[in-house]
Amino acid sequence: MIDFYTAATPNGHKISIALEELQLPYTMHVLSLSANEQKQDWFLAINPNGRIPAIVDRANDDFAVFESGAILIYLAEKAGRLLPADPKARSRALQWLMFQMGGVGPMMGQANVFFRYFPEKIQAAIDRYQGESRRLFRVLDGHLKDNEYLAGSEYSIADIANWAWVRTHKWSGVETEGLPHLQRWLAQVGERPAVKCGIELPPSRAIDEREQKGEELAAEVRKMLETGQSRD
Amino acid sequence: MIDFYTAATPNGHKISIALEELQLPYTMHVLSLSANEQKQDWFLAINPNGRIPAIVDRANDDFAVFESGAILIYLAEKAGRLLPADPKARSRALQWLMFQMGGVGPMMGQANVFFRYFPEKIQAAIDRYQGESRRLFRVLDGHLKDNEYLAGSEYSIADIANWAWVRTHKWSGVETEGLPHLQRWLAQVGERPAVKCGIELPPSRAIDEREQKGEELAAEVRKMLETGQSRD
Repeated sequence: MIDFYTAATPNGHKISIALEELQLPYTMHVLSLSANEQKQDWFLAINPNGRIPAIVDRANDDFAVFESGAILIYLAEKAGRLLPADPKARSRALQWLMFQMGGVGPMMGQANVFFRYFPEKIQAAIDRYQGESRRLFRVLDGHLKDNEYLAGSEYSIADIANWAWVRTHKWSGVETEGLPHLQRWLAQVGERPAVKCGIELPPSRAIDEREQKGEELAAEVRKMLETGQSRD
Repeated sequence: MIDFYTAATPNGHKISIALEELQLPYTMHVLSLSANEQKQDWFLAINPNGRIPAIVDRANDDFAVFESGAILIYLAEKAGRLLPADPKARSRALQWLMFQMGGVGPMMGQANVFFRYFPEKIQAAIDRYQGESRRLFRVLDGHLKDNEYLAGSEYSIADIANWAWVRTHKWSGVETEGLPHLQRWLAQVGERPAVKCGIELPPSRAIDEREQKGEELAAEVRKMLETGQSRD
């Protein structure tokens, strides 16, 4: 049994999708980010970085794993699925997983910060991160032109990681128009039952609802940013 | 024989340090980032994201690997060193590698952008990224209080990845004062012969020289940012 600590964010949904896809038994614990639960001592003992998601594997001496990319590798290896067995395809899956961890996630994340949450409207920063996110989308689109999935013919944790972020593109203010292969893959992955289930654990706010409640939600996150970024 | 495509950046130095540590035979190819060589078609065939570092393993059907985190895993597994054999220690190494890929690298990278390169001086953005980098340094410091290396008792690719970034903290305008365990580890890793060698492949500009030539270097990178961020 796995204890899974999460919230309704792209990084959290990566793990709920993987757990559903792998059919591993788990208990979900939803943390209140606005109450800063992820910075409480009991959780820092699981993840010293104080961020969701994290897991504790009760079947492996209560082993704790943090960082969504490392959790995906851990779960895939534990279940023996979602990472190709062929060494080259496996490396390709890890390359596109890293592309998400170091590129898509941080750049869309900063686009969200400056487009949605930052107290000041700094257009140059918004443009920088939306432009860089769109550039990364073009790289994905070019790769998906010739490949069904990111690692090749096999669906993998690389698809889960990138999909969980790219599907939230409207929240970042970045369009997918003109990128037909990315759109094909977005729809195809989104049809998987485990994906449909995973993004409701915990429930995503519908894009429309987010748009309507945009300022309310942004205000919540803004408060978190301010408390989370405190200096020494 | 490995072809190694790089430049004098923290992500490039991760790979030169690992190659030196593993004593794998390789040929280094230094790309001119200011001439945008990393966006030329021949290099995009190796890394569609158009960024250094990348490798091509001539001993493995010319297999190309991009994303520094994925290259580190590939090289460590090829050589059978720098990733612990114990599954838990191996997972810890991957967790701290992901911490660098998704946290330390992007946050110090954005600190560099706004502190050094951005055409406008936006203090709120500088503060955000320097503050977040310093917070990540505190997380490392707390972990290194009880652990010789990031994965525990064994030096690994997690140390190489984080070290290559943290050592450049002055360029990001982030101090390590008051973080004695981080400073101990910085010095200890920095004494390794492969590390001393790797950070000169290609040569790092000395921190002092960078400080003196700060504006000149920043102007170079600013030009790259502008050309690299072009929209569709």
